[in-house]
Amino acid sequence: MESNLQIRLARRPVGEPTVADFRLVEEVVPTPGPGEVLLRTKWLSLDPYMRGRMSEMRSYAAPVAIDAVMVGGTVGEVVASNDPRFAVGDLALGYGGWQRYSVERADGLQKLDPKMTHPSYALGILGMPGQTAYCALNDIGAPKAGETLVVSAAAGAVGQVAGQLGKIAGCRVIGVAGGSEKCRYVVDELGFDACIDRKTESLDAAFARHCPDGIDIYFDNTAGAILEAVMKRLRIGARIPLVGLIEQYNATEMPKGPNLAPLLIARAKIEGFLVSDHAAHTRDFLAKVGALLEQGKLAYREDVVEGLERAPEAFIGLLRGANLGKLLVRTA
Amino acid sequence: MESNLQIRLARRPVGEPTVADFRLVEEVVPTPGPGEVLLRTKWLSLDPYMRGRMSEMRSYAAPVAIDAVMVGGTVGEVVASNDPRFAVGDLALGYGGWQRYSVERADGLQKLDPKMTHPSYALGILGMPGQTAYCALNDIGAPKAGETLVVSAAAGAVGQVAGQLGKIAGCRVIGVAGGSEKCRYVVDELGFDACIDRKTESLDAAFARHCPDGIDIYFDNTAGAILEAVMKRLRIGARIPLVGLIEQYNATEMPKGPNLAPLLIARAKIEGFLVSDHAAHTRDFLAKVGALLEQGKLAYREDVVEGLERAPEAFIGLLRGANLGKLLVRTA
Repeated sequence: MESNLQIRLARRPVGEPTVADFRLVEEVVPTPGPGEVLLRTKWLSLDPYMRGRMSEMRSYAAPVAIDAVMVGGTVGEVVASNDPRFAVGDLALGYGGWQRYSVERADGLQKLDPKMTHPSYALGILGMPGQTAYCALNDIGAPKAGETLVVSAAAGAVGQVAGQLGKIAGCRVIGVAGGSEKCRYVVDELGFDACIDRKTESLDAAFARHCPDGIDIYFDNTAGAILEAVMKRLRIGARIPLVGLIEQYNATEMPKGPNLAPLLIARAKIEGFLVSDHAAHTRDFLAKVGALLEQGKLAYREDVVEGLERAPEAFIGLLRGANLGKLLVRTA
Repeated sequence: MESNLQIRLARRPVGEPTVADFRLVEEVVPTPGPGEVLLRTKWLSLDPYMRGRMSEMRSYAAPVAIDAVMVGGTVGEVVASNDPRFAVGDLALGYGGWQRYSVERADGLQKLDPKMTHPSYALGILGMPGQTAYCALNDIGAPKAGETLVVSAAAGAVGQVAGQLGKIAGCRVIGVAGGSEKCRYVVDELGFDACIDRKTESLDAAFARHCPDGIDIYFDNTAGAILEAVMKRLRIGARIPLVGLIEQYNATEMPKGPNLAPLLIARAKIEGFLVSDHAAHTRDFLAKVGALLEQGKLAYREDVVEGLERAPEAFIGLLRGANLGKLLVRTA
């Protein structure tokens, strides 16, 4: 039998992670105990939140221990099962981490419909990133027809869904993304009204041009300079779901934030969002977004990297904004 | 007849206002037109928001023009009336500004009950500052019994009411104020559980001592260093009504704000508040807070300055935190 290729955290990165912060090891494939299932990973999701798990700073979850396997959402195929709910060959959504084989408790797994055309979507538009977009936009953003919605990291896993849902809600939607290829994707394929290239455009000038009457909702995946520029153009009653802080995930010292006077002037709010608080909405999310996807009303792109051993470099690229669409590793 | 003493804005202050930014003039007492009332000011309210009106920075209201009379809430006695709703001798709450006499439209005035023991309370605990405390605490803070509430500028017009209402709601309430006299007032007379002296104590150490399990609600009158320290101790789901920014009202350049990562980690929110949005709650506020006051369940202190000509120095002191309680000018 083949070995269990694993990617472990070798040390805590300082600033931007490097491949030397990870260690590839080959282990014996583990054996599932009672109530457990052995899965072979088919898809590994790479997401910005993982940078937080690599660090010891205070966060909403414990850090990955040094020499432990990096955590992450996975779609795997059942190769051995000690639970009646799972049979060999079933596909399941789990949290197997950066490894070829994982043993997981059956009650922590979610069986995927064998008719599902794209099982990897369970890690993206029909999974955690999609639900993040859906719940943060609706519960905090509360979009109304005619409002102006700005979405940062607009070509990413969460941003592409949030902006399209904003369009469906009747908003004018302005994306912010890095590079002309992403901006073209955001406008031409996702149907946003415009997309600002943060690498070449002045944010202040671009927002003045694209949001002359101000911004009602800012779906914030990044914080940093984009948030700073948005704060200058808040409309009365503006809402900012704070969903990610990509701009500072590699920071060695926490940068200061924006001056908050605009919140008072506009009676606006910034509210932190974490999808795990919204499990009660998963069924509703899957029904709504699943239907839209089936009806062809949502475009969606994945950025697929082949081979688990390439996960570290792919993750480093994710934090640099190298991906276009949901970043995934397909396990050979 | 005596003259109309007025205090006008002579120029826009740079940084902290000085008395030279104001100009005292004596004008002829104006004559009310149809539907108007002439009032002689008895009480002038001095409030931090007035600093914003002196500047041309973007805000929620237009600035006072150079050489115009400074604006402000007033309680005045009717000395002439061209409206059947007001008779000579009536007391009314209005917006007469920093002057001895004002002509105001009758429909913009609110007649005060002649049996009211303290008409000046209409400018404080039963007026704009009291309603700010009531609405911002309830609508944004949403206090629950057992939660920890922090109130900055705790001995001021808004803070003293907000903290007491928090105690009545069953919260542990920690004040922050400047100086030992204020801190004693906050604990001994207002009944807060503790008060941190921002002038002598380390905020981080004091919050660690007084809020070992974190902070659920921060009623923010100041922003700046206190907000920065609070952000390190947010509990899951914390709420921060942003009611004032006293720490930066005299700033010539907008300081940066706190890093916002704690909002995401704690799924917390900061929301700007302006009492004028909450006019629909005025009746409810007056009923609730009026009853509590009558039942002796709310302590309340005013800081009274005698003579309109002393308004500029009193206002400068307000921004320095020199007052204890609601700052008012009694017009001779």
